[in-house]
Amino acid sequence: LIEQAAGQTEQSRKKKVAKLLELKARLGGDDGKHQFVLKTAKGTRDYNPKQMAIREKVFNTIISCFKRHGAETIDTPVFELKETLTGKYGEDSKLIYDLKDQGGELLSLRYDLTVPFARYLAMNKITNIKRYHIAKVYRRDNPAMTRGRYREFYQCDFDIAGQYDAMIPDAECLKIVYEILSQLDLGDFRIKVNDRRILDGMFAVCGVPDDKFRTICSTVDKLDKMPWEDVKKEMVNEKGLSEEAADQIGEYVSMQGGMDLAERLLQDQKMSQSKQACAGLSDIKLLFSYLQLFQVTDKVVFDLSLARGLDYYTGIIYEAVLSQAGVAPVSTEAQNGPPGEESVSVGSVAGGGRYDGLVGMFDPKGRKVPCVGVSIGIERIFSIMEQKAEASAEKVRTTEVQVMVASAQKNLLEERLKLVTELWNAGIKAEVMYKKNPKLLSQLQHCEESGIPLVAILGEQELKDGVVKLRVVATREEVDICRADLIEEVRRRTSDAS
Amino acid sequence: LIEQAAGQTEQSRKKKVAKLLELKARLGGDDGKHQFVLKTAKGTRDYNPKQMAIREKVFNTIISCFKRHGAETIDTPVFELKETLTGKYGEDSKLIYDLKDQGGELLSLRYDLTVPFARYLAMNKITNIKRYHIAKVYRRDNPAMTRGRYREFYQCDFDIAGQYDAMIPDAECLKIVYEILSQLDLGDFRIKVNDRRILDGMFAVCGVPDDKFRTICSTVDKLDKMPWEDVKKEMVNEKGLSEEAADQIGEYVSMQGGMDLAERLLQDQKMSQSKQACAGLSDIKLLFSYLQLFQVTDKVVFDLSLARGLDYYTGIIYEAVLSQAGVAPVSTEAQNGPPGEESVSVGSVAGGGRYDGLVGMFDPKGRKVPCVGVSIGIERIFSIMEQKAEASAEKVRTTEVQVMVASAQKNLLEERLKLVTELWNAGIKAEVMYKKNPKLLSQLQHCEESGIPLVAILGEQELKDGVVKLRVVATREEVDICRADLIEEVRRRTSDAS
Repeated sequence: LIEQAAGQTEQSRKKKVAKLLELKARLGGDDGKHQFVLKTAKGTRDYNPKQMAIREKVFNTIISCFKRHGAETIDTPVFELKETLTGKYGEDSKLIYDLKDQGGELLSLRYDLTVPFARYLAMNKITNIKRYHIAKVYRRDNPAMTRGRYREFYQCDFDIAGQYDAMIPDAECLKIVYEILSQLDLGDFRIKVNDRRILDGMFAVCGVPDDKFRTICSTVDKLDKMPWEDVKKEMVNEKGLSEEAADQIGEYVSMQGGMDLAERLLQDQKMSQSKQACAGLSDIKLLFSYLQLFQVTDKVVFDLSLARGLDYYTGIIYEAVLSQAGVAPVSTEAQNGPPGEESVSVGSVAGGGRYDGLVGMFDPKGRKVPCVGVSIGIERIFSIMEQKAEASAEKVRTTEVQVMVASAQKNLLEERLKLVTELWNAGIKAEVMYKKNPKLLSQLQHCEESGIPLVAILGEQELKDGVVKLRVVATREEVDICRADLIEEVRRRTSDAS
Repeated sequence: LIEQAAGQTEQSRKKKVAKLLELKARLGGDDGKHQFVLKTAKGTRDYNPKQMAIREKVFNTIISCFKRHGAETIDTPVFELKETLTGKYGEDSKLIYDLKDQGGELLSLRYDLTVPFARYLAMNKITNIKRYHIAKVYRRDNPAMTRGRYREFYQCDFDIAGQYDAMIPDAECLKIVYEILSQLDLGDFRIKVNDRRILDGMFAVCGVPDDKFRTICSTVDKLDKMPWEDVKKEMVNEKGLSEEAADQIGEYVSMQGGMDLAERLLQDQKMSQSKQACAGLSDIKLLFSYLQLFQVTDKVVFDLSLARGLDYYTGIIYEAVLSQAGVAPVSTEAQNGPPGEESVSVGSVAGGGRYDGLVGMFDPKGRKVPCVGVSIGIERIFSIMEQKAEASAEKVRTTEVQVMVASAQKNLLEERLKLVTELWNAGIKAEVMYKKNPKLLSQLQHCEESGIPLVAILGEQELKDGVVKLRVVATREEVDICRADLIEEVRRRTSDAS
């Protein structure tokens, strides 16, 4: 009993100490220093070396596609004058990050790369350019990081500006999406195509009042997340559209096809009454004829339900989606989105369209520069690639080191430094441990962990014989190589020698 | 006379019209739209395709050096919690860009890459890493854009974190600076080396009071911009140092040398009294022994006047400067800096040192992670490279297009699209004009302007014969190539075929 009582006292003492320690920890470190909150800002993240290796691989694939199509690249500052962004994003303007007024200009972080691009063209009076721009943009959105949605994220844009013959640059944008998604090997995909003019014409012939085009369009845009019944309800109950008009829209937006559908709709009694729709449909036909030559029609669908949100589109619009089958949730973290949203939102991996009016908004005389472009949804692609890497047995290498210079014996630091210098000077990617006398085992373990394929081992005997013992990490095979031949031998055995 | 009067009336009418037009232009465009101020934020700039091409080349050189030395890379967000940056930059904190408080966390744009790196290490409990990080940082400084000083600019950092044997990673940092500056071919350079402990020891033995070390150190730091007489005046008149102490400092800071100087100072009656100085001097000796093995001592100077400003350095410090001879002012714009500053400030192109305490500032328990690193002054290097490109006869290519698909006759758009598809699908970088019937001359002109080396010309005859006329732009030589052999032929003729 006494022991029990003593035990309880001991326990309560321990509790008190723990509470005090917790308090102390909250107040500061042992030396009374202020304790930092060790985190990144909400909705942002660091990229660790493994994520960077994946990111680099994805960027390389995308950039070489852009380069294959003859694109130049530009860069713009991360912040713009606040007024440059004003009036470009409608309701989403509230998501723009403003900088604090510290005297001087009022600045905001860029929200996308398209508006800075248009500002750049107008400011430099450029009327022709094919450029890509890969950079981070900023939105004070509700982050859903488990689904690859961040407040700081990459955009990866390719745009063609200039007055050209119809649909040729537009078709090349789709060719580029096709090439990138194929090469990234993300599984099957489809590219949906529509035209702002077809949407507007369709609304007109279905009896939607002019002033309701935009709001009805944004309801149609929800068709990939909501069943038609709910979309219709929103149109009729919330937006005051007549039931009849809604039903007519419903008929059109269920249509999908190719050039044939465009041809049929050009003959459609109702649709053919809209000049706008006919212009759009003729262009869709022309577009498909070019897509045939580009050999990409197997993935492209003319889909009348596609209605991208952004106001500035004036012609063709498109969006690429991954087929659901191949795509699992993009993170190992718990899903916190509404059920069902996941499977949809992860699907869209590229989008874009024609925006012939945006540059003119920046030109003092309103001179227009027609533009068409595509944005690759790179963050979603990163998420998928990271997940694939996680699932795969193959290790992601975070360095490209070809050979580790090691020794089995003591007091050979100088010899190791001499040899690694020879390798570096010959352009070989090489490493040496920063220890005077590292253990051979720890040197070999480092190679295993980092995926370094070769070890150049020095010992007294090797030095005397003028050789280096070259060890293949994977097979543990060892062979003496004449020192003069080492560089050639390393190059021969590692394909990526440079 | 009448004509003269009429002329005057006409002139005054024209003046009035011009004034009205000017007013109109200031008020807005033709359609009464608000007129935007078309500019980038103060101290920032766009990079045009030519500048990007140079930037890419410089980055490639630097990144392949980092990779050759086995570095991984990381990335951190452009903004950090404000408190993460607090107390790290001393007086320069006033240059930090804060974000507007829009609800939520208080954020600031990163001021350098070193503090985010330290935060990253502490947050992820990483004790060993060799990483590079190339990204933009932000300082509300007085921009001097003509001298390559911006408010948004790149930093390009390489750091080695971890507990290792003395001076081995430190020496590798210097090897890296040496390799990069040699490969960028910026002309002759020197790397000055000193040690924070030698500086502190020197101040102690010269009789500088402890509480004046930092301020005297910052005066010594001005020696590359001011003659010794002025530095001495500042020490004595402004900072209240005794004339005697100043003179003793003056003697030391005029010393330059190599390992021999370190040995001499270890025997120096005064200097040898400071334990700190002796530790630093021994390390300088050790450093030079490694630098000899790395074959870089021809450019490295032990210079007691080197005193880098940043508070967080704890050991070795270094700075690379270009020899004045080779460096002209960095811009074609008019110089607006104080006279004489130009020739000095353009010289420094890399700097760094050891900072063993910074990571511990972020660790709740103050656990230290020793670090040494170097920052490449990439903006200055861009400026110099741009200037060199400007001066050179050779044109900077902004795309890598290998072949232009062209036609001399009308109605061959489809054939051109078919051929360019074949080339793209084979990985050839190719372009086609976005016109139905472009003129051959304008197609050839585009090749001249963009530096495209080859033109694949299609005509009725070529189509009939199953060939393509391949034209070498530089020599105007033309040869018929069998269509099936075209890809191989293009690859053969362009070295960078991929």
